[in-house]
Amino acid sequence: MTDDPLPKPATPDGRRVLIVHAHPEPRSFTAAMRDVAVETLRARGDAVVISDLYADGFDAVVKAADFPERRDPDYLTVALEQRHADESGTLPPDIRRELDRLLWADLVIFSFPLFWFSVPAILKGWIDRVLVSGRCYGGRRFYDRGGLRGKTGLLALTMGGRAHMVASGGVHGPLEDMLRPLLQGTLGYVGMRVLPPFVAHHVPYISDEARRAILADYRAFLETLDALEPLPMPALDAFDDQMRPLG
Amino acid sequence: MTDDPLPKPATPDGRRVLIVHAHPEPRSFTAAMRDVAVETLRARGDAVVISDLYADGFDAVVKAADFPERRDPDYLTVALEQRHADESGTLPPDIRRELDRLLWADLVIFSFPLFWFSVPAILKGWIDRVLVSGRCYGGRRFYDRGGLRGKTGLLALTMGGRAHMVASGGVHGPLEDMLRPLLQGTLGYVGMRVLPPFVAHHVPYISDEARRAILADYRAFLETLDALEPLPMPALDAFDDQMRPLG
Repeated sequence: MTDDPLPKPATPDGRRVLIVHAHPEPRSFTAAMRDVAVETLRARGDAVVISDLYADGFDAVVKAADFPERRDPDYLTVALEQRHADESGTLPPDIRRELDRLLWADLVIFSFPLFWFSVPAILKGWIDRVLVSGRCYGGRRFYDRGGLRGKTGLLALTMGGRAHMVASGGVHGPLEDMLRPLLQGTLGYVGMRVLPPFVAHHVPYISDEARRAILADYRAFLETLDALEPLPMPALDAFDDQMRPLG
Repeated sequence: MTDDPLPKPATPDGRRVLIVHAHPEPRSFTAAMRDVAVETLRARGDAVVISDLYADGFDAVVKAADFPERRDPDYLTVALEQRHADESGTLPPDIRRELDRLLWADLVIFSFPLFWFSVPAILKGWIDRVLVSGRCYGGRRFYDRGGLRGKTGLLALTMGGRAHMVASGGVHGPLEDMLRPLLQGTLGYVGMRVLPPFVAHHVPYISDEARRAILADYRAFLETLDALEPLPMPALDAFDDQMRPLG
């Protein structure tokens, strides 16, 4: 946790990057990937801020106590209270800090080990608590009308399974299908350009040499980020005001 | 939280049912659905236990402190420490209690509001912490060889969006695609028979009459549960020992 002001990019085309990192082991390979990202991005002039959720003891659970000044004290509707708390300046400090970082960032990297084909709960809690209604989405402001339009989102994840297990025809099917609630239902939903995920496979079982090769691949991936084609997302112009498909 | 012994079904064909409930508002419609499930299932002789994660203050975050007697004190690998803690009887009491309930149950119902096309973080934490490696899965024991074979899993969820928004051709695509990491990647992965989810749509915006109709539908759904066709899941016989497709 830091109260430092948010940093400035070192060069005119430097980006503002938030890395949301969630791994319970500080010396994990996921953390090594995070460090590669920090180094690679700072070397090109980007300003980088890290939210290390385990190190910060980030509270994972959205709950009544998040909203000390309720719009409706009798019945908690999370989305409505988020909107009210954001508008009235009563978001709790941990959410306010994370939301400020998110709104500051041009690029948001989610750095995590795949737990149950999804993010660890502490990172799901960041999503539940920080992507506040009214600001990040709301009403018909989602997908290409989402509140975080103009930002880019990237999942950078590690997993135990082999690449062919999460491919088309593989036992689990394509990983991007498993990641759909994150890629489309979260990052795409709030309007981000969503890059193809960077995935480190079979991590607990491979040699140090193979791990170094993954870190080199990740560095190269990060250096050519701007050339990547984002994933296709729904466009709301194809739907009427009840969200029924047009024509 | 309860230290009561697990109850017995009231009739010979009564089932043992665990409802894992996760909603931050005690008077939510999701809670009304949970109550309908308790009443309907008990009426047919089932024994029902509820894990109410918000009411219990369930700890959502898997972490080093979960494993006081580490196999490897220097480096935390969650799956390996879960296996070790289960085998050595050193799982913390909250995980042990939830795991005992899970192992006791024939039918597990997950009762939750859809947050970001997934479960609330507190329920993701239950999945991360309670579905312990070695017991629920491990090595090549997953899908039809999973550790929880013989059990049935059901998602019973509420959401704000309309049914046509989560259908084929709808703006979000089919809900079952969004739920894939839960249906296949979690419940199917540990070997459960996975029933088609019961979904209450557009809940915050509908009339009391429409809500009562959903509760009646849910009751009927629960009364005919045994007749439902489970969702198709991968079968490991179609893959070799490196999980490459055979033939």
